[in-house]
Amino acid sequence: MMPGNKFACSGIFVGLLLVLFTGADAWAASAGAVTAAETYLWLALLLLLAKISGLIEKLGQTAVLGELLIGVLLGNLYLLGIDLVEPAKTNEVIAFLAELGVVILLFQIGLESSPADMRKVGVPAFLVACVGVVVPFAAGTYLVGPWLLPGLSNNAYLFLGATLTATSVGITARVFSDLDVLHSREARIVLGAAVIDDVLGLIILAVVSAIVKTGEVGAIDIAWITFKSLLFLLGALVAGNRIAPVISRWLSKVHTGTGMKFSILIAFCLIFAWLADLIGLAPIVGAFAAGLVLDEVHFRDFSEPDLIANIRRVIANSDPDTARNVRQTLDRHEKHSLQVLIEPVGHFLVPLFFVYTGMQVKLDVFFSATTLVTALGITVVAFVGKLVSGLAAGTADKWIVGWGMAPRGEVGLIFAVTGKALGVVSDQIFSVIVAVVILTTLLTPPILTAVIRRAEKNRK
Amino acid sequence: MMPGNKFACSGIFVGLLLVLFTGADAWAASAGAVTAAETYLWLALLLLLAKISGLIEKLGQTAVLGELLIGVLLGNLYLLGIDLVEPAKTNEVIAFLAELGVVILLFQIGLESSPADMRKVGVPAFLVACVGVVVPFAAGTYLVGPWLLPGLSNNAYLFLGATLTATSVGITARVFSDLDVLHSREARIVLGAAVIDDVLGLIILAVVSAIVKTGEVGAIDIAWITFKSLLFLLGALVAGNRIAPVISRWLSKVHTGTGMKFSILIAFCLIFAWLADLIGLAPIVGAFAAGLVLDEVHFRDFSEPDLIANIRRVIANSDPDTARNVRQTLDRHEKHSLQVLIEPVGHFLVPLFFVYTGMQVKLDVFFSATTLVTALGITVVAFVGKLVSGLAAGTADKWIVGWGMAPRGEVGLIFAVTGKALGVVSDQIFSVIVAVVILTTLLTPPILTAVIRRAEKNRK
Repeated sequence: MMPGNKFACSGIFVGLLLVLFTGADAWAASAGAVTAAETYLWLALLLLLAKISGLIEKLGQTAVLGELLIGVLLGNLYLLGIDLVEPAKTNEVIAFLAELGVVILLFQIGLESSPADMRKVGVPAFLVACVGVVVPFAAGTYLVGPWLLPGLSNNAYLFLGATLTATSVGITARVFSDLDVLHSREARIVLGAAVIDDVLGLIILAVVSAIVKTGEVGAIDIAWITFKSLLFLLGALVAGNRIAPVISRWLSKVHTGTGMKFSILIAFCLIFAWLADLIGLAPIVGAFAAGLVLDEVHFRDFSEPDLIANIRRVIANSDPDTARNVRQTLDRHEKHSLQVLIEPVGHFLVPLFFVYTGMQVKLDVFFSATTLVTALGITVVAFVGKLVSGLAAGTADKWIVGWGMAPRGEVGLIFAVTGKALGVVSDQIFSVIVAVVILTTLLTPPILTAVIRRAEKNRK
Repeated sequence: MMPGNKFACSGIFVGLLLVLFTGADAWAASAGAVTAAETYLWLALLLLLAKISGLIEKLGQTAVLGELLIGVLLGNLYLLGIDLVEPAKTNEVIAFLAELGVVILLFQIGLESSPADMRKVGVPAFLVACVGVVVPFAAGTYLVGPWLLPGLSNNAYLFLGATLTATSVGITARVFSDLDVLHSREARIVLGAAVIDDVLGLIILAVVSAIVKTGEVGAIDIAWITFKSLLFLLGALVAGNRIAPVISRWLSKVHTGTGMKFSILIAFCLIFAWLADLIGLAPIVGAFAAGLVLDEVHFRDFSEPDLIANIRRVIANSDPDTARNVRQTLDRHEKHSLQVLIEPVGHFLVPLFFVYTGMQVKLDVFFSATTLVTALGITVVAFVGKLVSGLAAGTADKWIVGWGMAPRGEVGLIFAVTGKALGVVSDQIFSVIVAVVILTTLLTPPILTAVIRRAEKNRK
């Protein structure tokens, strides 16, 4: 970068700061009444800061971690006497859009998986998932929770244990892909198990939430809630698989453009999220089910995007080899056309969820040695619980699978947020959970990289 | 469609209705406290209904009209004693997203135009735009307003006149494109003039809003506001043109993916919208300016989308003719890559604005003969005002240009919404304005089609 540009950049940043301060003045004047325009500014700033936090990738870390950390930074500026960010922390529209962001994220993860994929990953993935859910849950709820945080309610320990169950699919996949081993046996087991433990985790969330809402419940209630959750997921899959093609064929008679296809996708996602909420599950469970159900084949009656139709026309009369190669590329892309359509909405709303979650962390909680020790202790349990699950990986490299399952992320944070909303998770536990997510997310990539490199060396 | 499918469809609709009623019960129970999940349901239903209203296109009408009409229908169900929809009318998140929708729409219109395009359309387009703004504004404010609606404040007449100024670019372009005459001289003049009269209209909106906010103002104040508006637009264009490439180059060093490109686009749109609001202009003026400023050349440092990069790789070694043709198709598409990136967000939020606007119309206002006669009278003035502008079209067909300028749409509705927010536009005037938009939108396509067909016949 030339010196001139550096000056220009500083100028822009001074400008942005000025803008921020002017805005703050306007807020002070209007005493709490936030206008739509001020929300526009916050959305823009949070989005830009989330993207700038991507600089952390240069240090070999994942973007999610950057977004959480920038959120923690923004949310704790008040400790330095800067209360500029406080209006954003209580802005209802931002809170809604952040929640919608995680609904969209689980919908995207659902779209990337299919019921068939989940059947294919088979026995080892299922075993790894089960061990990786049961061990950290039991250890968190019955051992380390009561030991490090004595005197809390059983419900609080339940939530703590539940947050340790789900591996973060995004982070795991990103590390394997960065190291170009996405198609190894270990990677396939970890990815399959991560999807399964998300589902198991979401069932646990439903069970735990119900226990919290209705007081201590017996084995029959837990069985009923598990049954209800499985019934919803199965029902959503079966009914969705029947309804989706009918709705899509019917609406394709109105219009076959991309706008209609997109609207059907979003409407499915939102209606399933609402249905899940209606029967007492988390909205994200519904969004994930909606994503799992929807498939390109349901949208056969829709016209292709202009670009793809145009290229097909152009290559129609060209030499057969080129035509075949180009056509294969187009077809591969078409297989992901639903994800491509939802992606921009995800770009808009998903980072908001992570930044906003980071903003809810209260750093002053860590000023106490107890909390700090607790966070470190629970992080150790989180690691050990998932390393044990590697033992169930059969013939695959147990260390790679174990470390691959270690990072916690979005689902754990959703548990924390849900628990906070239910009044079970205190500021202290919330901050401990976010610390566990940050530490597992931060430590896994370098360790996993080292483990994979060593395994490759041993094979040679 | 087979009978079996019809049954399936009815089943689904009964299901949707059940879902709606169950939801309504839940609302009644929670007495006004709307949860995020209920907002998900409303967003899904409004989006689906907006898309189903696209059926109106089968009758040769435009989709915008369908969205308005379905909104009017939903918003007036209370007249039949059905108050299911009332919670959606007062839902703050939906109101915010609808407002964000029109910001995105004007950003999209801005992205489609460029300062160079606007210079190219030249003298006739500018003259048509000026006449088409001045005549309906003067006729609305000083003649037909005071005559048909005596006894209102001058500010109310000003707003009524202002809403008649701006042609709806979307509707006009759609009709020309449906008739495949998008590249005729008449079409180019109309499209150019429609963009210019949007800008003129937005300046009028700024002036009129300022007059309303600060009481009756003199010629010097109007000149100052006009100057401020032009200065903002020019300043936004000049500063934006300098800042955009620097920001984009700087952030491309963090990441060159689509997510970063998208975030820069949205952040520019939102920050410019906030800046416009800060200096007293409508946020949409800022969003339009942001769209006008941003151009593909500002994003040269970003990587191409996967599909396009893959196809370029596949055709690299194929025969030169095919490669050239495919490459041309890709390059043409790349010219619109910013629009393509924003489109899904537009699909999500823009229909919300139109449905939500329709929902604010109170049909009972039209139960009075006075209002009905007023709406018809003002519609006649709206048509005549734009037909006169056709006389400034030089050598082009004056009737085609005149009728092409006739439809009113989004900008007129924005005026009505702004006026309502300022307390100047009463429920009665608001409903009259929406009626004018609906009538000009409804009547123009068939008349314009007939005029163009006659002109084609005469030429032969």
